[in-house]
Amino acid sequence: MKTILHIDASARLTTNSVEEYNSISKSIAASFINKWKENNPTDKIIHRDVGVNPPNFITQDWIAAVFTPDEVKTKEQRALLSLSDTLINELEQADIIVMSSPMYNYGLPAALKAWFDQVIRINKTFSFDLTRGDHPLEPIMSGKTMVLATSCGEFGFGPGGINEKKNHLGTHIETMSHYLGIDTFYEINAEYQEFNDDRHKESVQNAHTKAKELASTLSNSYISTLQ
Amino acid sequence: MKTILHIDASARLTTNSVEEYNSISKSIAASFINKWKENNPTDKIIHRDVGVNPPNFITQDWIAAVFTPDEVKTKEQRALLSLSDTLINELEQADIIVMSSPMYNYGLPAALKAWFDQVIRINKTFSFDLTRGDHPLEPIMSGKTMVLATSCGEFGFGPGGINEKKNHLGTHIETMSHYLGIDTFYEINAEYQEFNDDRHKESVQNAHTKAKELASTLSNSYISTLQ
Repeated sequence: MKTILHIDASARLTTNSVEEYNSISKSIAASFINKWKENNPTDKIIHRDVGVNPPNFITQDWIAAVFTPDEVKTKEQRALLSLSDTLINELEQADIIVMSSPMYNYGLPAALKAWFDQVIRINKTFSFDLTRGDHPLEPIMSGKTMVLATSCGEFGFGPGGINEKKNHLGTHIETMSHYLGIDTFYEINAEYQEFNDDRHKESVQNAHTKAKELASTLSNSYISTLQ
Repeated sequence: MKTILHIDASARLTTNSVEEYNSISKSIAASFINKWKENNPTDKIIHRDVGVNPPNFITQDWIAAVFTPDEVKTKEQRALLSLSDTLINELEQADIIVMSSPMYNYGLPAALKAWFDQVIRINKTFSFDLTRGDHPLEPIMSGKTMVLATSCGEFGFGPGGINEKKNHLGTHIETMSHYLGIDTFYEINAEYQEFNDDRHKESVQNAHTKAKELASTLSNSYISTLQ
């Protein structure tokens, strides 16, 4: 049995009566999740929609609490870190992280960045040791897979694309995912949203198809690992 | 007379009794601002510390309000956009934006991204027109200068550096700054914070020196423009 941590990030819902108001990235992640459930009906799925319920911003007191050794943390400091503890516990349980995110201003929605800032934490998700020289940071967890579903208004954000250098969404999440224990990273991307044209329609359809195919492929690979 | 919009983003203050708890990026921006004030004591400076007072996350209702034409916006929608209106008004007044930001997890603190997500807004900071073909977005403002002071724990995030591809801070802000009307962009960066060694000390000192020099150079260039 596997555990999936499913994180949505768009401010939009998927239940609006007007279809075009709905989140595209959330619906692509849902395609993955639904196909996964068909294949693995008893798997545990932990769902967080940080777009609708954003985590708190970190504060100076939060940073101080993080750097205070556990045995001398005050009650207030423990309380300040309780959300971070919960989010990290969810991550620790997960074999696969299914994350969905729209591109807001060429990068992550602030709410999703708030999730990463709460989760990536010294002695919890990474260790720090200056005897490692110029690369003192190392992830504590490993062996996890991330499936990232993204949606953007423009296009060409992939390698060699006209907007490659402006992409601070998937590339940024992939960089950070190293510190979540992610060894295998997939991104499924729908483009052209602001053009609302045939390219957009095709891009969204392809993304849904890829999401379902990836869910089947990963299910099978896990099943064959278990045999 | 010029107007400066000064945006700080670190969760840390600059007034802690323990020096190493203080924000480096804020102190570099302060070096620029203090030198500027010496040269231009009557200039208007608008200061926002989004690290200490973060803007709200945008919501689905906020997005709906933004896309509702002004003449049919409800009272609730106007209220929902009032912070965005205020922040954009501050931007409109500014000739120079002095922004400071630490690198959190290879990118912007969530609170600073929340500021950008509130400020970059259709028909306010950019126009959208599909007759422009594949590039329908254009900034509405122009002629502004940005001075960005950044601080990071690691190093080598510049062009050709070992961490260049992991940099989603200055590069991301530069990409977004186009939609704030920024034509001229400077970044002053302090590195090696987590090593707390001579390289760090030197990097911070250099950053302060550069910040003061840039303040003098830009003051002079404005003065010569006026003559």
